[in-house]
Amino acid sequence: MKIAIAQLNPIIGNLAQNAENIIQAAHSAAQQNARLLLTPELSLCGYPPRDLLLNPAFVDAMAQQLELLATTIPPGIGVLVGTVECNPDAESKGEKPLYNSLAFLDDGKIQNITHKRLLPTYDVFDEDRYFEAGNVSNFITLPLDAAKENYLKIGLTICEDLWNDEDFWGHRNYEANPIRDLAQNQIHFIVNLSASPYSVSKQKLREEMLKSSATRYNMPILYANQVGGNDDLLFDGNSVVFNRQGEVVCRAKSFDTDLVTLEFDPEKQDFLPATIHPLPDCEEAEIWQALVMGTRDYARKCGFSQVVLGLSGGIDSALVSAIASAAFGPDNVLGVLMPSPYSSPHSLKDAHDLVANLGIHSQTLAIETAMQAYDTVLAPLFADTEFGVAEENIQSRIRGNLLMALANKFGYLLLTTGNKSEVAVGYCTLYGDMSGGLAVIADVPKTRVFALCRWLNRHEEVIPQNIIDKPPSAELKPDQIDQDSLPPYDILDDILYRIINRHQSSAQIIASGHDETVVKKVMRLVQRAEFKRRQAAPGLKITDRAFGTGWRMPIAARAWERL
Amino acid sequence: MKIAIAQLNPIIGNLAQNAENIIQAAHSAAQQNARLLLTPELSLCGYPPRDLLLNPAFVDAMAQQLELLATTIPPGIGVLVGTVECNPDAESKGEKPLYNSLAFLDDGKIQNITHKRLLPTYDVFDEDRYFEAGNVSNFITLPLDAAKENYLKIGLTICEDLWNDEDFWGHRNYEANPIRDLAQNQIHFIVNLSASPYSVSKQKLREEMLKSSATRYNMPILYANQVGGNDDLLFDGNSVVFNRQGEVVCRAKSFDTDLVTLEFDPEKQDFLPATIHPLPDCEEAEIWQALVMGTRDYARKCGFSQVVLGLSGGIDSALVSAIASAAFGPDNVLGVLMPSPYSSPHSLKDAHDLVANLGIHSQTLAIETAMQAYDTVLAPLFADTEFGVAEENIQSRIRGNLLMALANKFGYLLLTTGNKSEVAVGYCTLYGDMSGGLAVIADVPKTRVFALCRWLNRHEEVIPQNIIDKPPSAELKPDQIDQDSLPPYDILDDILYRIINRHQSSAQIIASGHDETVVKKVMRLVQRAEFKRRQAAPGLKITDRAFGTGWRMPIAARAWERL
Repeated sequence: MKIAIAQLNPIIGNLAQNAENIIQAAHSAAQQNARLLLTPELSLCGYPPRDLLLNPAFVDAMAQQLELLATTIPPGIGVLVGTVECNPDAESKGEKPLYNSLAFLDDGKIQNITHKRLLPTYDVFDEDRYFEAGNVSNFITLPLDAAKENYLKIGLTICEDLWNDEDFWGHRNYEANPIRDLAQNQIHFIVNLSASPYSVSKQKLREEMLKSSATRYNMPILYANQVGGNDDLLFDGNSVVFNRQGEVVCRAKSFDTDLVTLEFDPEKQDFLPATIHPLPDCEEAEIWQALVMGTRDYARKCGFSQVVLGLSGGIDSALVSAIASAAFGPDNVLGVLMPSPYSSPHSLKDAHDLVANLGIHSQTLAIETAMQAYDTVLAPLFADTEFGVAEENIQSRIRGNLLMALANKFGYLLLTTGNKSEVAVGYCTLYGDMSGGLAVIADVPKTRVFALCRWLNRHEEVIPQNIIDKPPSAELKPDQIDQDSLPPYDILDDILYRIINRHQSSAQIIASGHDETVVKKVMRLVQRAEFKRRQAAPGLKITDRAFGTGWRMPIAARAWERL
Repeated sequence: MKIAIAQLNPIIGNLAQNAENIIQAAHSAAQQNARLLLTPELSLCGYPPRDLLLNPAFVDAMAQQLELLATTIPPGIGVLVGTVECNPDAESKGEKPLYNSLAFLDDGKIQNITHKRLLPTYDVFDEDRYFEAGNVSNFITLPLDAAKENYLKIGLTICEDLWNDEDFWGHRNYEANPIRDLAQNQIHFIVNLSASPYSVSKQKLREEMLKSSATRYNMPILYANQVGGNDDLLFDGNSVVFNRQGEVVCRAKSFDTDLVTLEFDPEKQDFLPATIHPLPDCEEAEIWQALVMGTRDYARKCGFSQVVLGLSGGIDSALVSAIASAAFGPDNVLGVLMPSPYSSPHSLKDAHDLVANLGIHSQTLAIETAMQAYDTVLAPLFADTEFGVAEENIQSRIRGNLLMALANKFGYLLLTTGNKSEVAVGYCTLYGDMSGGLAVIADVPKTRVFALCRWLNRHEEVIPQNIIDKPPSAELKPDQIDQDSLPPYDILDDILYRIINRHQSSAQIIASGHDETVVKKVMRLVQRAEFKRRQAAPGLKITDRAFGTGWRMPIAARAWERL
């Protein structure tokens, strides 16, 4: 019996289009004689639908779309669709109004609906906001022969339901264990509809976990993941199938839609090997693909096909230009050089070299006239004060204003180019270089920005070498370099990783070998920059803890001394 | 026996200072012979601590601070303190790591810890992200006489624990019902430590609910609420006590710290009447106090004592100026007039009249020179295009840049002045008039802005009458008025209220009598402005659904057609 996995890239809330994509996948799968098609978690509305779920009309529309979909699926194939179902007992039992669900559509009807049991509430997840947890694990049966004498029992799970293998994790994440419950039901294999967000090397972790579960229960597992970018969240696809022995027998593409099929052999009671797409060959290649996909999808799903960004001659804007060029084609990228009297000659040359290497469009808009206009109007108030952060920020905000003017005038999406290290410590200007609709590398630490650029240059020079070699500088005053204000980036990034991703205390970080003064300064800076991050553009998430949906810190707080 | 309620205004995460405030309240209460002092929910760390709770060092510091607090409380008085407790079974049972808790400190020790049972996850609440729900309702006993022959049994609850009176609501909000459980334990009265955020007229709802519960169970209820502003959330205080008959016998101040005491009469088994502060006498008075407190607290807790804002001559900036003037004193408020060639003469006069009425400082910075500088540099690119949104936004962003320059130079907090109606439909400029650290009236619809200004003028002219009477205009092009682009505000605000606060569908809104074209346009605008709101400053929440913490909408989505 053939099973297919449709690795889909939905637009959140676009029910008709998402349904159409499911139907097309079902037709392709049916042509390949698949009996069953898996789609990702909440494939009908896209994941995460967030507060759209608070709207009864939206939930009703989804139910209607599901009914329609059931009647439109081609004959001979069943489809597992991710959707929501209302909880009829919500008011009488004091439960949540919806279930995160999986509908089995077959023979023109909704045959069966199963509820997600394990609801994540950590990091970017808010599933308890909307959903009641299911309390049973279901399976479906499919006849293995025309005489309907032998049946295949297929265990049904949704995303997090697989993430409670206490032997693998060394502790329990949830009280229930859906895989174990299913394994006790003599099922033939488990399917899992997922929308599992990307972070660096997460697929390795997923595959280790799935291998562990497949082996422990001696049972194949089919994991169907969503792909594509939805705001800050990236979904890497990488849908994968493990056989009874815990071997990968099928893997869909990384960072792209796909439709894969594979054969279940009733004799061996196992899946036969099928297409196995390789994973990206290093972390840099993986992050690159993630950022290109995320940038393209955010723009496309917001209705943009062209982008603009400021080119400072520095490494951050160079990397973002390269990503944009890959995402939209160089012809759809406009880089804007905005030199000031503090810009070094090499910055302009470096930016021009970058433009030439990438083949993108460029414009040069000098900001000196505008700087003078601000100086003139502010002179009566700023008399007797020294040049400082206020004057530095004016320059950055003039650039932001020019870029937004171009974006507004020509319908470009403005990409902002700040990296995670500077967003963390607030080394960036609100309404200046932070301006833009998407913060492409906001979750990429500066040291990783360098690594990505070196990786990009592995065959030929994409990023001009001088951009990689020179010391980073904001060039907002004469001879300024970042390291005047900040510790060296390798030290800063390690401290930031410990604070942000590992929740370490200052005592722990100092004990790891960092200087106490530096650690305390960084901790204070991170907390004091919260007001800037609150107003930042969505940033593509590539680590297990990004500023954004999953970072919920108070602004008017005073806690860093106790951290 | 005397009981006291300390209505405290904590700074999030400032454990030492919050503990000090509790100790001071305990001393005052002890001097008044109180035997027991109530403080608000999570009084030790302030509510909401949000992701600070993910930091083990912070949780440890809180536990240490609690131990220290227990030994520092004056003798003779017990104190109920809001804190968190680690869940020792989290890893073995797959539960959440913490409990939202209430510690009873007495006689130099932590006598007893009780866990919150009902954890809200709607609107601004994320309690399932951090906390495991408690599964029992506890009480403490206090001897009523020296011989310790008679005891008072006091039932303990935390905030949401009271919000599941199914007879009052007509449905269950949670499975458990802590009040009912306690009532079955023959307790004398219930205490409730709360951090219940403000929204318009919410105190009336709370008191109706508490009255209903007190009456049903024939049992007094003491509700101790937090007061003050924490980022977008406002806490109105209004701690209140109901006797057995469901009568208010004590009420603390609205929007201010307070310490109230009242006497439990063992004969009557009920509380005797005590101080009852009146509620604000109308919704406008209440909202005014809320916004003044929230603005003052945000600035103070972020370390600011002076504010700056742009004065357009319009009603929004007039209202925010008046709020700032009340919050910080007129001497600490700088209003900046930034006329352009499109500014009408009356705008400048109106702004000057406002400055004179309030007695605030003002400066005038004309933006024409800066506009010309942008025009010049952009001329080669903008040739052959028509004046449009790009040019309008440049003006707004020049103003934002000037205001931020003043804020950066002199250490002012910049207040942004957009109202809820314009933020909803995106009638505002990102990095322009949206610039600022706090969006004071971002949850106040335009019609309510007018009502507040008329109320402010009830005794004498505070807001110049012409500002209230003239048609609202952004003045970004000649003879522009808001109603060129938007439906009349009374219509717009009703539609917005139905969309935002009531989750109504377009069909429902049209059925209520609104024009279909207008409704669909507004719905589309609301969804398309999501990218602006994502980058907005925190806005003070005064309704049951504000843009901010409790509004979680995708940006790259296409759903409005189905709403």
